Amino acid sequence: MTDSNHPWTTADAEVSADDLGRIDRWWRAANYLSVGQIYLLDNPLLRTPLTRDHVKPRLLGHWGTTPGLNFLYAHLNRVVRDRQRPTVFITGPGHGGPGMVANTYLEGTYTEVYPHIGHDDEGLQKLFKQFSFPGGIPSHVAPETPGSIHEGGELGYSLSHAYGAVFDNPDLLAFTVVGDGEAETGPLATSWHGNKFVNPVTDGVVLPVLHLNGYKIANPTVLARIDDDELDALMRGYGHTPYIFVAGFDDESHESIHARFAQLLDEVFDHLARIKQTAAEQGADDAERPRWPMIVFRTPKGWTGPKTIDGQVTEGSWRSHQVPLANARDTDEHLHDLDAWLRSYAVDELFDEAGAIDPEITALAPSGELRMGATPYANGGLLRVDLRLPDFRQHGVEVTEPGVTIAEATKVLGQWLTEVMRQNPENFRVFGPDETASNRLQALYEVTDKQWLAGYEPNDEGDPMARVGKVAEMLSEHQCQGWLEGYLLTGRHGLMSSYEAFIHIVDSMFNQHAKWLKVTDHIAWRRPIASLNYLLSSHVWRQDHNGFSHQDPGFIDHVVNKKADIIRVYLPPDANTLLSTFDHVLRTTQYVNVVVAGKQPGPQWLSMDDAVRHCARGLGIWDWAGTEAEGEQPDVVLGCAGDIPTVEIIAAAAILRERVPDLKVRVVNVVDLMRLQDEREHPHGLSDKEFDAIFTTDRPIVFAYHGYPTLIHRLTYRRTGHANLHVRGYKEEGTTTTPFDMVMLNDLDRYHLVIDVIDRVPGLAARAAGLRQEMQDARLDARAYAYEHGEDIPAVAGWQFGDGGDATTLQDTGGDNI
Amino acid sequence: MTDSNHPWTTADAEVSADDLGRIDRWWRAANYLSVGQIYLLDNPLLRTPLTRDHVKPRLLGHWGTTPGLNFLYAHLNRVVRDRQRPTVFITGPGHGGPGMVANTYLEGTYTEVYPHIGHDDEGLQKLFKQFSFPGGIPSHVAPETPGSIHEGGELGYSLSHAYGAVFDNPDLLAFTVVGDGEAETGPLATSWHGNKFVNPVTDGVVLPVLHLNGYKIANPTVLARIDDDELDALMRGYGHTPYIFVAGFDDESHESIHARFAQLLDEVFDHLARIKQTAAEQGADDAERPRWPMIVFRTPKGWTGPKTIDGQVTEGSWRSHQVPLANARDTDEHLHDLDAWLRSYAVDELFDEAGAIDPEITALAPSGELRMGATPYANGGLLRVDLRLPDFRQHGVEVTEPGVTIAEATKVLGQWLTEVMRQNPENFRVFGPDETASNRLQALYEVTDKQWLAGYEPNDEGDPMARVGKVAEMLSEHQCQGWLEGYLLTGRHGLMSSYEAFIHIVDSMFNQHAKWLKVTDHIAWRRPIASLNYLLSSHVWRQDHNGFSHQDPGFIDHVVNKKADIIRVYLPPDANTLLSTFDHVLRTTQYVNVVVAGKQPGPQWLSMDDAVRHCARGLGIWDWAGTEAEGEQPDVVLGCAGDIPTVEIIAAAAILRERVPDLKVRVVNVVDLMRLQDEREHPHGLSDKEFDAIFTTDRPIVFAYHGYPTLIHRLTYRRTGHANLHVRGYKEEGTTTTPFDMVMLNDLDRYHLVIDVIDRVPGLAARAAGLRQEMQDARLDARAYAYEHGEDIPAVAGWQFGDGGDATTLQDTGGDNI
Repeated sequence: MTDSNHPWTTADAEVSADDLGRIDRWWRAANYLSVGQIYLLDNPLLRTPLTRDHVKPRLLGHWGTTPGLNFLYAHLNRVVRDRQRPTVFITGPGHGGPGMVANTYLEGTYTEVYPHIGHDDEGLQKLFKQFSFPGGIPSHVAPETPGSIHEGGELGYSLSHAYGAVFDNPDLLAFTVVGDGEAETGPLATSWHGNKFVNPVTDGVVLPVLHLNGYKIANPTVLARIDDDELDALMRGYGHTPYIFVAGFDDESHESIHARFAQLLDEVFDHLARIKQTAAEQGADDAERPRWPMIVFRTPKGWTGPKTIDGQVTEGSWRSHQVPLANARDTDEHLHDLDAWLRSYAVDELFDEAGAIDPEITALAPSGELRMGATPYANGGLLRVDLRLPDFRQHGVEVTEPGVTIAEATKVLGQWLTEVMRQNPENFRVFGPDETASNRLQALYEVTDKQWLAGYEPNDEGDPMARVGKVAEMLSEHQCQGWLEGYLLTGRHGLMSSYEAFIHIVDSMFNQHAKWLKVTDHIAWRRPIASLNYLLSSHVWRQDHNGFSHQDPGFIDHVVNKKADIIRVYLPPDANTLLSTFDHVLRTTQYVNVVVAGKQPGPQWLSMDDAVRHCARGLGIWDWAGTEAEGEQPDVVLGCAGDIPTVEIIAAAAILRERVPDLKVRVVNVVDLMRLQDEREHPHGLSDKEFDAIFTTDRPIVFAYHGYPTLIHRLTYRRTGHANLHVRGYKEEGTTTTPFDMVMLNDLDRYHLVIDVIDRVPGLAARAAGLRQEMQDARLDARAYAYEHGEDIPAVAGWQFGDGGDATTLQDTGGDNI
Repeated sequence: MTDSNHPWTTADAEVSADDLGRIDRWWRAANYLSVGQIYLLDNPLLRTPLTRDHVKPRLLGHWGTTPGLNFLYAHLNRVVRDRQRPTVFITGPGHGGPGMVANTYLEGTYTEVYPHIGHDDEGLQKLFKQFSFPGGIPSHVAPETPGSIHEGGELGYSLSHAYGAVFDNPDLLAFTVVGDGEAETGPLATSWHGNKFVNPVTDGVVLPVLHLNGYKIANPTVLARIDDDELDALMRGYGHTPYIFVAGFDDESHESIHARFAQLLDEVFDHLARIKQTAAEQGADDAERPRWPMIVFRTPKGWTGPKTIDGQVTEGSWRSHQVPLANARDTDEHLHDLDAWLRSYAVDELFDEAGAIDPEITALAPSGELRMGATPYANGGLLRVDLRLPDFRQHGVEVTEPGVTIAEATKVLGQWLTEVMRQNPENFRVFGPDETASNRLQALYEVTDKQWLAGYEPNDEGDPMARVGKVAEMLSEHQCQGWLEGYLLTGRHGLMSSYEAFIHIVDSMFNQHAKWLKVTDHIAWRRPIASLNYLLSSHVWRQDHNGFSHQDPGFIDHVVNKKADIIRVYLPPDANTLLSTFDHVLRTTQYVNVVVAGKQPGPQWLSMDDAVRHCARGLGIWDWAGTEAEGEQPDVVLGCAGDIPTVEIIAAAAILRERVPDLKVRVVNVVDLMRLQDEREHPHGLSDKEFDAIFTTDRPIVFAYHGYPTLIHRLTYRRTGHANLHVRGYKEEGTTTTPFDMVMLNDLDRYHLVIDVIDRVPGLAARAAGLRQEMQDARLDARAYAYEHGEDIPAVAGWQFGDGGDATTLQDTGGDNI
């Protein structure tokens, strides 16, 4: 996208009386269509007297926020049309779904994507009936709604999505309606600060509209009940220039209200144009952070709806939130009130005899892709361009023998990502909550900076901060996730890195995005968007500085509840497998890819060729680590998934090779966790035949897993050999201690794994007399050494802390050093 | 607690020179002890020249925030002492753990709870060594730290915890340090609005201190880099009167800095006293919301630490965040710098020859329980008083026959909770994100109101809002959870109600609280606090208005990853079982209780006596619903957990009774989900013998579960009969549709359950010829009816929508109405 066709300019024209008339009629039409969707099963244009049978049996939906949204959409049409501004309309109060459906129907886009909803009586009847109806459409601004990148079902993310959308889209306006209920959520409260992260030259514009209609489901809203001076201060404190608009609380005519708002909108757009011009003069690298305009839009909840119902105030009250006339099908009084309400919009003045909207009204809207329901920015797959991916094989770690080379996996990944960034400067971003460097991706700063438009100080000299940069960091996982989602939904690529434990902060945001992807998979006109990629590092086993509160590997458990079509989970054991994994996930669309990888120095197992093959299979037998002979069944299978469990399993296998050389041990490493699941449950799942060939049907399996052990059982409970499967993993034991003590606390250490094998292979205890006791002693020794010295015994520390120089390795340390 | 002993009064006294000297020496001592903890293994008072061996091999911890915390604690001592103000010190930047340990050591409380850490050289050596050391203490302000109710490991919740602590504690001051990193999180950003929910007469005071030290791990902070006028506006917008304090960036002497801050603190405390006095004059019911003071405390990160290290700015930079001299054990240069740094605090002036702190310094601190490390408010179990619980049996629903009575379970619960509220006015609160009434607990408003100190409008007449009330609602699950946690941690009781799907918003907060409970279970001096109780309603099966985005039953999966000692999950199938469950959970301590219950009208199954018995067992066979004969094994077991699955299982059993009368069907209902787990894994778990007696070892089990089916497998995979277990539940299919269509979309409906039985009982397909087809037809008919009429077929709607009058029931409808 370039901005050549859409310069940001001021406009001096007066708002014409014709347009004011169109705005009012559009608003009435949109309100009528909204009420119709909520209540009417039939008789859409009231051509016959309204009867109970015309009313839906189950009245589901939300009226309260809808008239305000319709008002804003009506007015925005004119400005977008006149200024030719590509605009995405982000609906924070997404439960105002009927409004967005109504507006996109009026502008024509709805019928373009759903041709059965025509512009006639029949089309209107279908439009009304389908809303919140079995087999119809959802009540929210869901993926089914043209022009939406934001369902608003769970509140709090509208502004984050908006900022994500405008990054690297200098042409784009994200007109973002923030509900005053939503404004109380934590994520929304901090997302205002997104204005410190957008560049006024190279990024687009977020125009927040705080829709202050005063009420939630059952309460007033906080921001509607603080003093005007406090609200003004709050918005200025957030870095905005507030434009306050109040209407609907007195007898002012709609004509007057429209004139006032149209003028305000022109002022705001002129303000934006001046900001853009000033910034262009300053240049992107020197542009000052503007005090961006925002609009406080204070209007009554349920505006134009019934003033009172059953004697209780309704317009301007929380009673307007859902369906004000709940008994419209059941009582004459409510039916009568509904009839009067519908007719108050003077439907005859809006639609012709065939049921088509008066084209004089729709002349208000822009045309083509400038219609907000038709903008390609809200169907990002249309804009998505594949990443140019440099050959990751060139960035690998040389591995001549397993376990000799020591490397930091995410640091290696960071070097390749740096090339990705270099080759895709307008199409790829990395987001993180202050942890990009902590997670070892700092090589990125060789080609880009952290975008930062808050203040600078002399100390910053040498830090990779700039007014233009492709890394954005704020200490809010919500904000980072919302930015990334907005960036992807508008057709770009990216990833988010986070400490593993704290990705739970966005569990619910992940839910919503996964649901969005699941639904869009089945909407033909929605084009695939790039996958949402998580890099989770600083994981449970290596939270040396922080301890128990920072130890939680449960995000994987959370994600696998979502549809298997959407979810991918990878646990690459070393740097080369991490590179191969990331090369893959950056090529995918419509997934959520969760990649867990360590950042600490660790042993490298696979050459690049082996890593590629291993990742392609998703799991595999590591012959070099085991002791089985060709064509023979092993005595025991040692499985592992995750970098630390892999180290411990390899070490356990080495101990067994040394001490029980005739024991046939098979070592299996799993990169793609979903390979473990049944092929009927997950597209990556192994067939039973494949699974049995690898894990056997009757031999003990000791499996060392990165996270909570039950997940492995959950994925494999249908497998033939499941009864033989014994899983070690994190069992919620932890504190600030040494890395090896952490694995010991959870019985995941090599010594305990050997004991697990002894306990499960028939006869082994007798064959390896004394080994069990020796392993127990080794545990006690390791614990005692750590308690005394504060670090791990050298025997185990090599792989944990190796820095190349003094790293002990599997090959040259031998049994007594394990 | 009454406030008679602790009046809020102004104080005119000047700060004495003696006290200023004490403050400076306390600060130096606390800083010295903090640095010592991070670095020193031995030689705690530098009585011999510092050598590398005195330095810990692994340097773990966080220096950056610590000197600021120490400064604040030192100063607060004087004010608390002089004004006799019960104070809890809440440490948002909890990674400043060494500071809180140091301060509580200085005031004596640390040694009182940990007598082995004495006030001599040996005690100091242990104090230093144990920090972030294997077998020692965590690096954060963890449960192990006296005076803490807030680990601060995951950032964002300090202010919510503080407001929760002061509810109904009019005497209490929560001095709350908010880190400027933490301030970027969503939860913290909205938690400032807590000041609209506390009453200046009946609640205590939260004094926020924004610790603006400028940096996070690797970045400047947003709030440190906005203009002063913006920051001032932001705080005023949040409803505060900011007091700005800046120090440490120039050559000002510490004496001068201490004098300025002491004066500022006196001004702030006088301001608080005036607020309290004014409010007392207004009276609790009429008290205006004050513009509470808050302090902006802008000082350098790593203040008093090394100015530069290796030529790079360190004090006043993000480089101070963790351990600035990372190579103190490895290089002479860093060792030298560490030595100089430690000696800069003039340790000889602080400790005597035996290693005890100069009593002249500790004269700064208050005594007894006013010491902030010793306040009982931070060990809430000391203050906890059991709830007075009215007899829930008096509030039950009369059930003469199963399935006849129709009731709304949570509404019935609400009536009993109303009595609980009436009998425990200062000891019980209900929190919720705008959903207390939506979740049908509105009976509470018969005895209390929603506490609200933002503005009032004439429309509010008749709404249950007041300046004093025991329900608090803000549209932020984070805020509600944080309030409840703070309330419980200071010794009171309560619950939080939420829409089931959106409780995922606080997944990570739950994690932290569960971890806190797990750790405190093993700390002898910590007394048990009341359990954290969730009531999850508006659940996955009945999100009629909102659809797919509001459907997620996965919180249960999330919680069961935490320690079994802590976690309880209940799925009462009707009102009486819900009452019995809640009577139980409100009596418990140290748990997280998750209770999932419906709010819609539904059939009632158990009389109160039966409900009590059923809940006591946690699960049981419902003879009346099945068809097995005494002493015979059933042909099939139908299990269920959750209200909607129970309805469908009972209906399926009824169909089978009607159509295959000789089939022996056993119906098992599960209330206490953890009964399914192995007794070795969970204290509530059934023994294998008990499990087998109920579920058999060899008969097919068709289990209808409220949530994701894999959870049932996860809990039961070790059971003998697990291979026979087939689970239906939510498989992530949903939209805005009818209730019965929702269960059909997920194959959880009665018809499909019958098909599942046919497919699993050998020979049944032949015995019940045509039944399978009939069930398939019934599904198609139900779907077609819903698509046409927009509501469920009367045959199934009775139990879903019954309002008593036209409810069809199991007994009188017979087979053809199922």
